[in-house]
Amino acid sequence: MRPKIAISIGDLNGIGIQIALQNHEKIKKLCKPIYCINKKMLNQAATLLNLHVPKDFEIFKTKGEFEIKAGQVSKKSGKYSYNSFIDAITLTKQKQTSAVVTLPINKESWNKAKIDFKGHTEVLRSYFGQNAIMMLGCKKMFVALYTEHIALKKVPKKIKEEELTTFLCDFYKNVKQDNIQVLGLNPHASDNGVLGNEEVEIFKAIKNANRILKKSIFKGPIVPDTAFSKANRKSCKYFVCMYHDQGLAPLKALYFDQSINVSLNLPIIRTSVDHGTAFDIAYKNKEVNSKSYINAVKEAVNLINTKV
Amino acid sequence: MRPKIAISIGDLNGIGIQIALQNHEKIKKLCKPIYCINKKMLNQAATLLNLHVPKDFEIFKTKGEFEIKAGQVSKKSGKYSYNSFIDAITLTKQKQTSAVVTLPINKESWNKAKIDFKGHTEVLRSYFGQNAIMMLGCKKMFVALYTEHIALKKVPKKIKEEELTTFLCDFYKNVKQDNIQVLGLNPHASDNGVLGNEEVEIFKAIKNANRILKKSIFKGPIVPDTAFSKANRKSCKYFVCMYHDQGLAPLKALYFDQSINVSLNLPIIRTSVDHGTAFDIAYKNKEVNSKSYINAVKEAVNLINTKV
Repeated sequence: MRPKIAISIGDLNGIGIQIALQNHEKIKKLCKPIYCINKKMLNQAATLLNLHVPKDFEIFKTKGEFEIKAGQVSKKSGKYSYNSFIDAITLTKQKQTSAVVTLPINKESWNKAKIDFKGHTEVLRSYFGQNAIMMLGCKKMFVALYTEHIALKKVPKKIKEEELTTFLCDFYKNVKQDNIQVLGLNPHASDNGVLGNEEVEIFKAIKNANRILKKSIFKGPIVPDTAFSKANRKSCKYFVCMYHDQGLAPLKALYFDQSINVSLNLPIIRTSVDHGTAFDIAYKNKEVNSKSYINAVKEAVNLINTKV
Repeated sequence: MRPKIAISIGDLNGIGIQIALQNHEKIKKLCKPIYCINKKMLNQAATLLNLHVPKDFEIFKTKGEFEIKAGQVSKKSGKYSYNSFIDAITLTKQKQTSAVVTLPINKESWNKAKIDFKGHTEVLRSYFGQNAIMMLGCKKMFVALYTEHIALKKVPKKIKEEELTTFLCDFYKNVKQDNIQVLGLNPHASDNGVLGNEEVEIFKAIKNANRILKKSIFKGPIVPDTAFSKANRKSCKYFVCMYHDQGLAPLKALYFDQSINVSLNLPIIRTSVDHGTAFDIAYKNKEVNSKSYINAVKEAVNLINTKV
């Protein structure tokens, strides 16, 4: 039986709604999608896109109404995308749907709408009071982020033995992979302390986690700049990164169009596209790459089946 | 006319001499190589490798003699590789050659030989008393590093308008490329100040540099995690990175085996392979990847022609 999946519609000034409409035929073969958007907004977007709304395009009426302005940062659009996401979470929490798949929101628009979260993952963390783990990637390579949307200068102080140990154990419990590499923070993983000292904490956390899990799951701290070389990717597919760009820049260099975002360590399943609102091409009759969206739906279905 | 290039022979216990001998026919079509090694050492290596020394293999007699020990860290080998490098620099400084191409040295061997430098770039900086710019990459993509071998926690404070302006202007003068992207420091290039504020300095430096150069050479600060996506690499080949791993992790994920290292902003031109001595396969009759060496010679010739 195809599972029901709540689709959080994303920022309506961006490309999310185009992706949703154009891929409905494909994803309805994998699941029963329920799109969190009301009729008025849906029709407005479809008209602007010159797209037909499929008859079986089932919606959950997310409240709100505003004029779509293609490619614009907007308070109203930010607020609406947030509401759509909350509806999708709530549906899934109440077990009316089995997972949430999110289309991209715009962080500046959320900021304008005074939404106190930097992104989807932060909302999930607050909603469930649990420490969600952000993992991105595709079949060939996944990166989990130990720190996410914080200024780079704040990262080094966050590298602490205890917190990282917990993170590693939680991550293992969610992905159940036996070979995971943990990156160092500094160039050359500090060259034995010559270039920084945070690797000491990382080393201790790895040791702790392996002891707790009673198996040598984690290796490292490994040298960040060669972590994603072809040779090393052959030996390992799961990586724990200390900060946002350490994992995401190499991932997007290699596999941008097929990557997805997965929230682990939560009571609900949530996957997402790994791209932004692409304001520059929104509502311009341009072809939009849907690989990430399709992969996000596939992985949600996969996780639903794994959980059962 | 083919320019003369001084080849610094690298650590003779490693793979450098094999690369030099096996690629002489290829590179002599691009330049007139002058290898900094004496006859005795050359013959010893060639015999061990069971390779023939080409008749037109022109040498500059770097002094010294020792027994080659395949794949071993050694004080004598470290000292000899240093001397070969100094000879290559001196030849080029005296305009007997137009550039230096370096084969890999072993840092531990230099350490054993009490050579007070961490690597080639540090020697060059000290030799010329000038602030060399480190650029790595290949034809498809080059990254210049604004900061290099420093702890990550020290990077944010280094992002200053004035210093970065100078760096950008110097970089442009060396590469003469009209389309260069400058990366932000923070996730999402700070999302307009939400995730850090160093992008303000970067923005000002870009503006200054473009004003000074009277042309819109530099663009940015661009979002680091999507900087090296396939789509963006199509629009730009030269990137200025704020720190070591920001540029090198994506570069090595994509093009490790063909990448080279270029020292810019010096009185002489120097390019280098971007790999190590590979002690594990030295003198073992193994096939050695020469892409990086060939590319280093090509780029040296290219820079000689740009300079003229």
